[in-house]
Amino acid sequence: IQTTNIKKNLHELTVKPYEAGSHQEEVVLVDSIENTWKSYLDKVEIYPYDVLLSYPNITDQNYVGLLHPNGSVTMKTNFTEKLLVKNEDQPGVIPSFLAYTPSGDVSGDLFYVNYASVEDFEELLKLKVNVTGAICMARYGYIFRGDKIKNAEKFNCVGLVLFSDPYDYGGVPKHAWDPSFSQNGYPNSWWSPPSGFQRGSTQLHGDPLTPDYPALDLTHRIQESETNLGKIQAQPISYEQAYEYISKLGDTVAPEAWHGGMNVTYRLGGSFEHPHENCKAEIHIGNVNVLKKVHNVIGYIKGWQDPDKYVIIGNHRDAWTYGGLDPSSGTAVVLEVARAIAALVRDGKWRPRRTLVFCNWGAEEHGLIGSTEWTEQLEKRLLLRAIAYINIDIAVQGSATLRASATPTLYSAIYNTTKVVPNPNIDEISQNRSTVFDTWLYKKARKVNLPPIGNLGSGSDYTTFLQKCGVASVDLIYSFDKRIPSYPSYHSLHDTFDYMEYFVDPKFKYSKAIAEVAADLMMKLSSLPVLPLSPNDYSAKLKSMFQQFNETNGEFLNANGIHLTNLESTIDQFNEAAAALSNAAEKLNVESSDAEIRVINDRLFEIDRGFLDFKGLPGQQWRHVIFAPASHNSYSASGFPGVTDAIYNLQHSTGTLDEVRQQLSVLALKILALLTLTQYICKGKQHLYLFFKL
Amino acid sequence: IQTTNIKKNLHELTVKPYEAGSHQEEVVLVDSIENTWKSYLDKVEIYPYDVLLSYPNITDQNYVGLLHPNGSVTMKTNFTEKLLVKNEDQPGVIPSFLAYTPSGDVSGDLFYVNYASVEDFEELLKLKVNVTGAICMARYGYIFRGDKIKNAEKFNCVGLVLFSDPYDYGGVPKHAWDPSFSQNGYPNSWWSPPSGFQRGSTQLHGDPLTPDYPALDLTHRIQESETNLGKIQAQPISYEQAYEYISKLGDTVAPEAWHGGMNVTYRLGGSFEHPHENCKAEIHIGNVNVLKKVHNVIGYIKGWQDPDKYVIIGNHRDAWTYGGLDPSSGTAVVLEVARAIAALVRDGKWRPRRTLVFCNWGAEEHGLIGSTEWTEQLEKRLLLRAIAYINIDIAVQGSATLRASATPTLYSAIYNTTKVVPNPNIDEISQNRSTVFDTWLYKKARKVNLPPIGNLGSGSDYTTFLQKCGVASVDLIYSFDKRIPSYPSYHSLHDTFDYMEYFVDPKFKYSKAIAEVAADLMMKLSSLPVLPLSPNDYSAKLKSMFQQFNETNGEFLNANGIHLTNLESTIDQFNEAAAALSNAAEKLNVESSDAEIRVINDRLFEIDRGFLDFKGLPGQQWRHVIFAPASHNSYSASGFPGVTDAIYNLQHSTGTLDEVRQQLSVLALKILALLTLTQYICKGKQHLYLFFKL
Repeated sequence: IQTTNIKKNLHELTVKPYEAGSHQEEVVLVDSIENTWKSYLDKVEIYPYDVLLSYPNITDQNYVGLLHPNGSVTMKTNFTEKLLVKNEDQPGVIPSFLAYTPSGDVSGDLFYVNYASVEDFEELLKLKVNVTGAICMARYGYIFRGDKIKNAEKFNCVGLVLFSDPYDYGGVPKHAWDPSFSQNGYPNSWWSPPSGFQRGSTQLHGDPLTPDYPALDLTHRIQESETNLGKIQAQPISYEQAYEYISKLGDTVAPEAWHGGMNVTYRLGGSFEHPHENCKAEIHIGNVNVLKKVHNVIGYIKGWQDPDKYVIIGNHRDAWTYGGLDPSSGTAVVLEVARAIAALVRDGKWRPRRTLVFCNWGAEEHGLIGSTEWTEQLEKRLLLRAIAYINIDIAVQGSATLRASATPTLYSAIYNTTKVVPNPNIDEISQNRSTVFDTWLYKKARKVNLPPIGNLGSGSDYTTFLQKCGVASVDLIYSFDKRIPSYPSYHSLHDTFDYMEYFVDPKFKYSKAIAEVAADLMMKLSSLPVLPLSPNDYSAKLKSMFQQFNETNGEFLNANGIHLTNLESTIDQFNEAAAALSNAAEKLNVESSDAEIRVINDRLFEIDRGFLDFKGLPGQQWRHVIFAPASHNSYSASGFPGVTDAIYNLQHSTGTLDEVRQQLSVLALKILALLTLTQYICKGKQHLYLFFKL
Repeated sequence: IQTTNIKKNLHELTVKPYEAGSHQEEVVLVDSIENTWKSYLDKVEIYPYDVLLSYPNITDQNYVGLLHPNGSVTMKTNFTEKLLVKNEDQPGVIPSFLAYTPSGDVSGDLFYVNYASVEDFEELLKLKVNVTGAICMARYGYIFRGDKIKNAEKFNCVGLVLFSDPYDYGGVPKHAWDPSFSQNGYPNSWWSPPSGFQRGSTQLHGDPLTPDYPALDLTHRIQESETNLGKIQAQPISYEQAYEYISKLGDTVAPEAWHGGMNVTYRLGGSFEHPHENCKAEIHIGNVNVLKKVHNVIGYIKGWQDPDKYVIIGNHRDAWTYGGLDPSSGTAVVLEVARAIAALVRDGKWRPRRTLVFCNWGAEEHGLIGSTEWTEQLEKRLLLRAIAYINIDIAVQGSATLRASATPTLYSAIYNTTKVVPNPNIDEISQNRSTVFDTWLYKKARKVNLPPIGNLGSGSDYTTFLQKCGVASVDLIYSFDKRIPSYPSYHSLHDTFDYMEYFVDPKFKYSKAIAEVAADLMMKLSSLPVLPLSPNDYSAKLKSMFQQFNETNGEFLNANGIHLTNLESTIDQFNEAAAALSNAAEKLNVESSDAEIRVINDRLFEIDRGFLDFKGLPGQQWRHVIFAPASHNSYSASGFPGVTDAIYNLQHSTGTLDEVRQQLSVLALKILALLTLTQYICKGKQHLYLFFKL
């Protein structure tokens, strides 16, 4: 793995903007990656799909405005960001919009609703603030923007304005920024400049017209009116322009925790202060939805022993603007991983037992479209044969530490891998933190002697692998350790090669570390005779999830006559089965036959399949009963999602006790089902059937 | 395989009545089969479930009656059948009822509705006969009795009386029988006596309280009011008693085709003739639903190479009365197959590569309950690892010919097997029909030189294996070749050992033939290094199904702007992929490595998995898009069921053109999905990657 290659890759990928469906993305980059991979991989396939993409309309620009009683509109927000440096001045940067937000005009009283979370709206209800028929204005951050819009819709708002508050994105303390500080942020620092804004999609379910099925030529498409896309107008703006609105809001002062970085009093609004007391806010959206062809590029290095078992790595290709970090820090890394592993194979030194699959996804930014359509097309193949999926989206967004989210089966492989990858930070090596693992442990570990690995929700291309096909998955990123919602230039004009080179990973050594982690994981997963997947880690995770669940909900459930003894007992039983399977795997050795190894390997990689409920979680497309995107924040993972949602619904009078019982029953049954799935028969050496647990 | 053993098995099984949930069935027979199997199989497991069973109420007897204007009721039908021979006089024979029919009283005008098919009710509509609020009376036969009730309910009847018409069950010509012929049928012949009636269940979906999930202790149970069980009263009666009602019906003469074997004018009714013109029909039902524990007995012979791949044979244990044919002709056969194969293993001569699983199901008669709960519990294990399921319900109901229904993957194995099993009929051997295949071909083949193999719908325990887990399945029976709906004593008191010995298979040689077919299929499937599953037969079947579908629907669809070119083209593509896979399988030889063989075998047994749509067919629990129980007759198979139903709905103004398009799209997509599933990588001999199709 060479930093120079990663840097060169990134530079070539980011010369022009390349949003999903553009010529640069769908022709230039697809051809380039296809040709590159054809030059060193065993086989490359292109998977095209015809999908519904969403774009702003250049001749009917989106804006937020102040509507005066005479009908005139002032303070219209900018459609484009200010160019601040030379290398971001290419034509074709996509203007300000939220993908799939419907076109149209709405106006209404303007309210400030903090992050537009369910809790924020519930707080407003407590404060007797009624946002029905109003336009709301919310800070970006912490929850998926599509859920902010869904929440606003649920609480009867007619429109939502999203802005990047300078406290979250501008690097300033509370109440610190005003328009006089116009030089804040990029290019002077990595923080967002006053004019920067965050584009993004409002859905994470693949092509909206072909739910559950791949968007092929012959696929039936539903009408746009039949989709689950958001119904209200919404638009993102910069903090420079948000200031104009927030500073004019009247009425009640917002709760202290809702105050952001602008030097104004954050008020809840509902009216504007004098002389704007008769004004309303207006949102004008001209977005258009267009059927476009998008492509996935899929490359293979064939396994010599189990060519039909897949160890998959994937990363998306499309960027909102220049993709300096998102996604091409990842693409640059995946290309280098593929090259480096292919070089080993070409030299004839080595070939994996199992097939390696390299995926370059299209249209991730519009809603994980490329990966969703592909997993819908290859659903059974992945369900029956995929060993693991390694996701790299943004590879590097900081230099503090690795951040990994994964299914528990992969925990120990991730720890073992990070223990052999050198710490990219030389200063830290001199402080005896010689590996990626050491610094990760130092920065992140609290009580236990292992750094935490997060749970997978949604927000990138691992989603359908795990949530629909039950494939053990991991998402890898080198990150900051600041308490900010994302790196500041996320989805803005300024997410460029320069941004990466000046502010994130100047020497590409953190990129190299991520590449080494990914490559080592792929080598282990594809080539160790016994798969490095840990049933014991899953069982430990279930135990700790149960403990936490019990602490949160045990008392409430008890008061309602529901006891968790059955659930606890199934987890105990799973614990025993996991230990037995681990023991059997450890007993395999060089004298073990291929058939014996295969039996154990099949049991290991099938574990997450057992947790799938093909009926789906209630009201969801997701099938995994242990981890799913949280209902009110798709970015985060909900543990025991069916039960958790049922309890939430019961507590909010939208569900019944029987639904809680049903979901608890399904959860326990799926954990029990894993017992039968992890059971196996194994031949002992002395007696043909010494060890027999069917 | 010894006829003496089969005969002995059958005799021991049938000494007392053993309906599901009874002591004889759940204690005596479970223990006996468990102990028998423990004596010669490698391992035996008991799978218990707590399920809702339905029984008639001895102290509140069901009847159909004639309700007079003064409120008195006459002509009450019998609760029990007449004892006609000595060996059917044991206590505990379950009286007359239809399982899960709700208790209660209804009365109304009485109509005769032929077989109560959808077509019959539509014919009545054409004839301007309105059955709303009425009680209908229908002949048994041809469609599942539960669908007759569903149809009656759909056409707004309040009750349904089912009778065994002497034309269908009594062996008489049309209009030939009247009460003076009281000696008709058993024990003088195998035909139903005038007093015989057919019990049976009204549902085929497993435990009604735990849809989709196994009925374990911890499983949440829905309320009875939330189930899909029928809502109207219904009751079966004999032809002797049906005569009393049919002979009194007034009004329009029924269409000629509706006339049965009673020497009366079959009228549509709506009123009774003089002097009963002011009478109504009444149904009184006292049935009760009871939670009961039922058990499956599952035995194993472990495979030496792939112990985690399963070749499964199953048969149900419970009978409505004495189970002479249904099911114990099958149980007797399966026990003998297990004994015979186990004897080979015990001698050390032989052991299968793959594990053999012997299943003895509980509570089939109540709605495939034992097998459904088991497949729901082991769903993922079966989905990922089951090679094939062989079902034997009634093993022998006649001596004319084999009758097989199967998934196309098994066609050639079935033909090959039947070509090596001797014809049990010595007379036919002397006519140069030396094998089971020969006589099957002679009796059944029409244009082609192969006997027809039927499609699997529902009605026995293969249902969930195929419809929910995508396991290649076959149902085997030695049968009559008369045009009657079933053997006459089906589900009656007279389905006894005597009935078998006097009228069906006196020397148990047809039973032996079925056992030999099943045993040989199990040996082939469990022990041939390359699985004898044929992708080419599937592709040929798809082609012929398409042709038939096109003939039936092509013109109608064309007129609505829907063309079948996409579907046809996907089938052509599947044809190519199937041929490639078959070729690769044929190229395997003694020098092929275990890994090469495994890859091809996995592709072969996964074929039916590709046809599963986990979303389920619209409004159904079934998942298989090629074969499913027909919507209006669960016994028969619907080809391309999603599309077929959508077209039916469109033609009956209960569906849209878009739903047809959607279902055609799903069908084509699942056939395409199989392409990716059947693809594989194979190592050539000369070059490591000579043959590479990923």
